[in-house]
Amino acid sequence: MTAHRRRSRKPRAPLRRAAPVLFLTPGEPAGIGPELALRLASRTRAILVADPQLLAERARRLRMRVKLAEYDPANAARPRDNEIRVVPVALRAPVRAGTLDPANAAYVLETLGKAVALVQATPRSALVTGPVHKGVINDAGIAFTGHTEFLAQLTGAPTPVMLLAAGTLRVALATTHLPLSAVPRAITFEGLKAVLRVLHRGLRERFGIARPRILVTGLNPHAGEQGHLGREEIDIIEPALAALRAEGLNLIGPLPADTLFTPRELARGDAVLAMYHDQGLPVLKYAGFGHAVNVTLGLPIVRTSVDHGTALELAGTGKADAGSLAAALKLAALMAARA
Amino acid sequence: MTAHRRRSRKPRAPLRRAAPVLFLTPGEPAGIGPELALRLASRTRAILVADPQLLAERARRLRMRVKLAEYDPANAARPRDNEIRVVPVALRAPVRAGTLDPANAAYVLETLGKAVALVQATPRSALVTGPVHKGVINDAGIAFTGHTEFLAQLTGAPTPVMLLAAGTLRVALATTHLPLSAVPRAITFEGLKAVLRVLHRGLRERFGIARPRILVTGLNPHAGEQGHLGREEIDIIEPALAALRAEGLNLIGPLPADTLFTPRELARGDAVLAMYHDQGLPVLKYAGFGHAVNVTLGLPIVRTSVDHGTALELAGTGKADAGSLAAALKLAALMAARA
Repeated sequence: MTAHRRRSRKPRAPLRRAAPVLFLTPGEPAGIGPELALRLASRTRAILVADPQLLAERARRLRMRVKLAEYDPANAARPRDNEIRVVPVALRAPVRAGTLDPANAAYVLETLGKAVALVQATPRSALVTGPVHKGVINDAGIAFTGHTEFLAQLTGAPTPVMLLAAGTLRVALATTHLPLSAVPRAITFEGLKAVLRVLHRGLRERFGIARPRILVTGLNPHAGEQGHLGREEIDIIEPALAALRAEGLNLIGPLPADTLFTPRELARGDAVLAMYHDQGLPVLKYAGFGHAVNVTLGLPIVRTSVDHGTALELAGTGKADAGSLAAALKLAALMAARA
Repeated sequence: MTAHRRRSRKPRAPLRRAAPVLFLTPGEPAGIGPELALRLASRTRAILVADPQLLAERARRLRMRVKLAEYDPANAARPRDNEIRVVPVALRAPVRAGTLDPANAAYVLETLGKAVALVQATPRSALVTGPVHKGVINDAGIAFTGHTEFLAQLTGAPTPVMLLAAGTLRVALATTHLPLSAVPRAITFEGLKAVLRVLHRGLRERFGIARPRILVTGLNPHAGEQGHLGREEIDIIEPALAALRAEGLNLIGPLPADTLFTPRELARGDAVLAMYHDQGLPVLKYAGFGHAVNVTLGLPIVRTSVDHGTALELAGTGKADAGSLAAALKLAALMAARA
């Protein structure tokens, strides 16, 4: 019966009725976020959390015909064609595409705060974020190390885990934005266990993988080569994996990172846990160029994001590639539908 | 005139007359090296430096029809079909495919020593190495950290540089087989300059790139993000690049490693210098799966190698993929022809 339904002529009807609600923050107003958001909002029915004037101006500049309407949570009717629903947040200062202004840092964070509150209040919803510029937020005197950490604070999540997905290749990180010299001591028995538990649960609940298999890299080249190239595998990683295997997690590793990303090895797992940023992301971004999605696991909400920056030099030109944001919206919808 | 010649019917004739001489060490005798070498020796006319009995036995086991003949440097005639020239080196103990024996560690190193001496004595020649097993050489009580370091010692080269090539993607490493915690302090102003000079020269002389452009990664994620994620870029890498630019080198960076391996960025350079093993090799091996070649620059000889290990579980089955060795032989021939 199910199989028959799946092959029927209108396979999407059941999903359409319960379409997930996507709240999209375009991010840095001087960057490419607003135009990417405008391009994808009608098609995906995402609700933009942004300044309506900013959106109207950017649309005019790019000769896009859009109609902005204030989002009304009580009105669940489908928006009309070309209509984009907006949760208004006021800019603090006028925006020139391509030019950062610390005065608008508070605006950027307010869009995030508002969007998170809406996602928490809306069943089967998700947050999708455009690119922000960390530097300008810091220049405004606000401590901000990234979306992931900020959202974790906002939602009181103890262990946010950053995962990048490109098709079936998924790479999560045990540590994120640390100087390389701080990485080895940041890999701890307890920390690693916490990250792996979040990843395991995220793969089950968000990605719908019933029995996730996780490939874990070593910290050192060749996964330490039996202690010849570092002892963290023996002293920390292996014991952490052993403890979690006893809890039923399916973990493979620690594996050498340079041979892990080959077809035979990747076929053994549903996701990779890399120990640090530049061990896992160069290969993920190479493999997923133009369609990689950043996902935060371990939050009480579904959150995806583009994997690229604000591309100030392209802002206002309409030339920026919307592939990553499109993939982020699509994945968010899938994940929210499972929630 | 040159253009006409290139398009003439026998474009290879001038090259054939001066065909480079390739000396191939199959490496660990219990691994897949001997059978890969046998498969490729006739086609490429590579000269094997190995135990003839070992080769004959492995050929019999795999039902390969080969004829082994001792290499005679005085006889430059082309070998007949199916004839494989061998520089004999005697095994120290009988070999069982798949089973390591420390007794043969000295044999493995002798093949390398003999091959290096022959390459040094033979114009337009190159060394191509099959996989060795570091562990079993160390178990034999011989300090051995890898081919690269061993060959550098043998030839008195102060700064060997490891580069992996997969088609036009070339990734060299500023540091190689170090525990991750030792990497930051191994990146020094003088060391980095020495590596970059060797890389620049290698790209010119070995790869025939007249004006090499080198993309250099940062050490830290996001290349340190203006000092927020580490200071090595500001304190060491940027000054080293500035000093070398003053010498005329074309260096781009330091760049974030996770966005460097995308088409637009890669198009700006002829090679990448990554700061450490797991920053550069996962993406290279992903991109070049099955045809990546390991090249040592900074030696007085041309040397290429397979990018894989001994694959003991496949030894004697004939199932191992010869793609990387084939690519290593091809690249060595190109490089030797330029010498």
